[in-house]
Amino acid sequence: MSSGRGGRRLALAAALALALVVLAADAGVTSEYRRKLEATVEMPLDADVFRVPPGYNAPQQVHITLGNQDGTAMIVSWVTANELGSSTVAYGAAPEKMELRAEGTHTRYDYFNYTSGFIHHCTLKNLKHGSKYYYAMGFGHTVRTFWFTTPPKPGPDVPYKFGLIGDLGQTFDSNRTLSHYESNGGDAVLFVGDLSYADNHPLHDNNRWDTWARFVERSVAYQPWIWTAGNHELDFAPELGETTPFKPFSHRYPTPYRAAGSTEPFWYSVKIASAHVIVLASYSAYGKYTPQWTWLQDELKRVDRETTPWLIVMMHSPWYNSNGYHYMEGETMRVQFERWLVDAKADLVLAGHVHAYERSHRVSNVAYDVVNGRSTPVRDGGAPVYVTIGDGGNIEGIADNFTRPQPSYSAFREASFGHATLEIRNRTHAYYAWHRNQDGAKVAADRLWLTNRYWMPTDDTN
Amino acid sequence: MSSGRGGRRLALAAALALALVVLAADAGVTSEYRRKLEATVEMPLDADVFRVPPGYNAPQQVHITLGNQDGTAMIVSWVTANELGSSTVAYGAAPEKMELRAEGTHTRYDYFNYTSGFIHHCTLKNLKHGSKYYYAMGFGHTVRTFWFTTPPKPGPDVPYKFGLIGDLGQTFDSNRTLSHYESNGGDAVLFVGDLSYADNHPLHDNNRWDTWARFVERSVAYQPWIWTAGNHELDFAPELGETTPFKPFSHRYPTPYRAAGSTEPFWYSVKIASAHVIVLASYSAYGKYTPQWTWLQDELKRVDRETTPWLIVMMHSPWYNSNGYHYMEGETMRVQFERWLVDAKADLVLAGHVHAYERSHRVSNVAYDVVNGRSTPVRDGGAPVYVTIGDGGNIEGIADNFTRPQPSYSAFREASFGHATLEIRNRTHAYYAWHRNQDGAKVAADRLWLTNRYWMPTDDTN
Repeated sequence: MSSGRGGRRLALAAALALALVVLAADAGVTSEYRRKLEATVEMPLDADVFRVPPGYNAPQQVHITLGNQDGTAMIVSWVTANELGSSTVAYGAAPEKMELRAEGTHTRYDYFNYTSGFIHHCTLKNLKHGSKYYYAMGFGHTVRTFWFTTPPKPGPDVPYKFGLIGDLGQTFDSNRTLSHYESNGGDAVLFVGDLSYADNHPLHDNNRWDTWARFVERSVAYQPWIWTAGNHELDFAPELGETTPFKPFSHRYPTPYRAAGSTEPFWYSVKIASAHVIVLASYSAYGKYTPQWTWLQDELKRVDRETTPWLIVMMHSPWYNSNGYHYMEGETMRVQFERWLVDAKADLVLAGHVHAYERSHRVSNVAYDVVNGRSTPVRDGGAPVYVTIGDGGNIEGIADNFTRPQPSYSAFREASFGHATLEIRNRTHAYYAWHRNQDGAKVAADRLWLTNRYWMPTDDTN
Repeated sequence: MSSGRGGRRLALAAALALALVVLAADAGVTSEYRRKLEATVEMPLDADVFRVPPGYNAPQQVHITLGNQDGTAMIVSWVTANELGSSTVAYGAAPEKMELRAEGTHTRYDYFNYTSGFIHHCTLKNLKHGSKYYYAMGFGHTVRTFWFTTPPKPGPDVPYKFGLIGDLGQTFDSNRTLSHYESNGGDAVLFVGDLSYADNHPLHDNNRWDTWARFVERSVAYQPWIWTAGNHELDFAPELGETTPFKPFSHRYPTPYRAAGSTEPFWYSVKIASAHVIVLASYSAYGKYTPQWTWLQDELKRVDRETTPWLIVMMHSPWYNSNGYHYMEGETMRVQFERWLVDAKADLVLAGHVHAYERSHRVSNVAYDVVNGRSTPVRDGGAPVYVTIGDGGNIEGIADNFTRPQPSYSAFREASFGHATLEIRNRTHAYYAWHRNQDGAKVAADRLWLTNRYWMPTDDTN
């Protein structure tokens, strides 16, 4: 036996050990945490969270979202149930100094045997950045007052804290998740779709759109939520004669799409602090030449990482999901758009849809060319991290059906309800944390520092 | 040297020879035919084919398409330019016996600085199968008379001859292709999208929609054309304030989508003789849960191969294309729907978009599962044949940029203009032929017998 052969053996053993280490580092985590199993049921209609505010024709279901691209406008929406009432909003820097007035518009819609209340939308414009405003509506009968703080002026090192919530619904778990988020104190919510789950009720009972909006008012009347359309927003029901997709959602939840150069409310963008947030529509057309495709192509050219270093993209149906539920449903949009997001050095891609939590490594799957067969996700330090946060806590329950073994693109996954937060600290660093809704609010079951792909375009092992 | 080793050598040589034969049989053909190069230019506005018919307010741009699913209704459309006039159609079994009357409706639209004429649509109902009808419109001023033959009653062995045309436009080559098709004498046209190319003109000059409709009247007033929406039908031009996709197309070209249980005119189906024809929309939403997705899922269950043995699917953007132009643009829809069509044993999938001719072998690419990397098209005797017939002859010219080497899924391809015909003979056999528009009408540059996937589900080496 020559020493040469022994040397080779040693080298082989060393290589094998190294490979194991690499494998261990690469291996994703399927969390062994097991929540106490209990039914996920909707809160009853007489639950306190659904309470109609007292007073004749009192404004209810108050919510706000950004009214333009840079955060100096806010759309205030609410419903009056007894009569039309006023679409005016009064606002100002203090409750006793609401001297400014904005005139809104109103709309209604029918859905099968349901007729909505009067839905008011009023845009407050020319607001100052980073300023607290009080606002009130309901003039004539019952006035209600709320407040919000506008986002700071977009800039490269402006800290901001986002809440990341999806597939919320209106169960006891939804309530727990929302309270949890409130304790964690974000400045705005990036909501990845599936709001009320009204469509899970007979005849898509649109009263459940009303109850949901009353339930979340305690947060969304005070800070902007950025909306994404999910499949439960489609409300497409030819059997009921309801064939206009997104009818209730588009009447109720306006978005600043025109300000973003978009032609439909379902895809648009906003700039908040140091983030450029792009919202995509999983259930609209995105083939080449379509309006969404055309808009996204142009939009990505408009992203200015010198001003807004963080590029965050939201859609409902995830591109990287290793749960049996909704497995590969996002493939078609991934095939269409993934290369663009990789080329644009997007930092974070948020989705919902799957009722569990999952975070990917930085991966991409963009080498495929039909004839080369190269269609496997590979580690790619320049690619975004994908987070599936469809674990708000809705009536459909937890998706506890992960594929085995955990695929190499999946970094962490757990079948629990919860929400996440993203704290952008400066142009290079952001702290991301996922919170189970059964832990104390400050417990992060998954967390990491994200480094910016534009300003620190190196692999940070995420 | 043992005889055993020699035997093995012999076997090896034999296997190698067999492999070569198989490879030769598998190899696709890239036709070496070279058309005389000449500019593809639109016919001038004063060309005879664009002539406005004489007479005050004379009906022009007459076209027909099926008005229901089984061919006992026909939608007659036309335009009056001087004044509204009548939306009535008179019809009957002979020119002197047009005693039946149908009342139509009319519509108009504006597109930037263009206002359309009065566009009339009138559905003739309760027609007899396989019967010749004369019809006339233009009452009050200038009456024009046309005729058509309704398709025979759907049944398993009813012969029928389809013309297959796409991306036609209004060039001299378009005219040659149309004349060519007329010589070949089909009963109806399956048109795979991209009609007028008006959008290639400044401000999407919609007068070019009018000229196109006058140009093709000589065929489409006498036999139904089945319409597919192509990218040139989008007319999406936010820079002109025109943000409603398909505005001119949907005003001008109705489809029997409601009869097919669809909720939008861009995806639907018709039954003609022994064929069930499904039209899909490449530029509408097709993600899971969307209206088109939902409709197609249901529609495939409604296909009855005992009555209509031939399942033909049309869309604009091809799934299997080996031309550098529009390469892989159809991938996202393929990823979404290919498995359904394979499972449904579709016979033939027609597309346009690429301005060249291509026919695939029977292939499928449905094994992909993210983690298995199996994403290569493979020969699949149960899969459809894919034909790209976007070679009608439009202003954008020929797509002479095939990828090399010819991929294994591609059976025949040639960068020429032309059209194809599909002659269904009975439940098992159909004769398919592609005709270059520069040859004599009867010359088939590519041809084959197709066997039915439901009634003869074996590999026929196509």
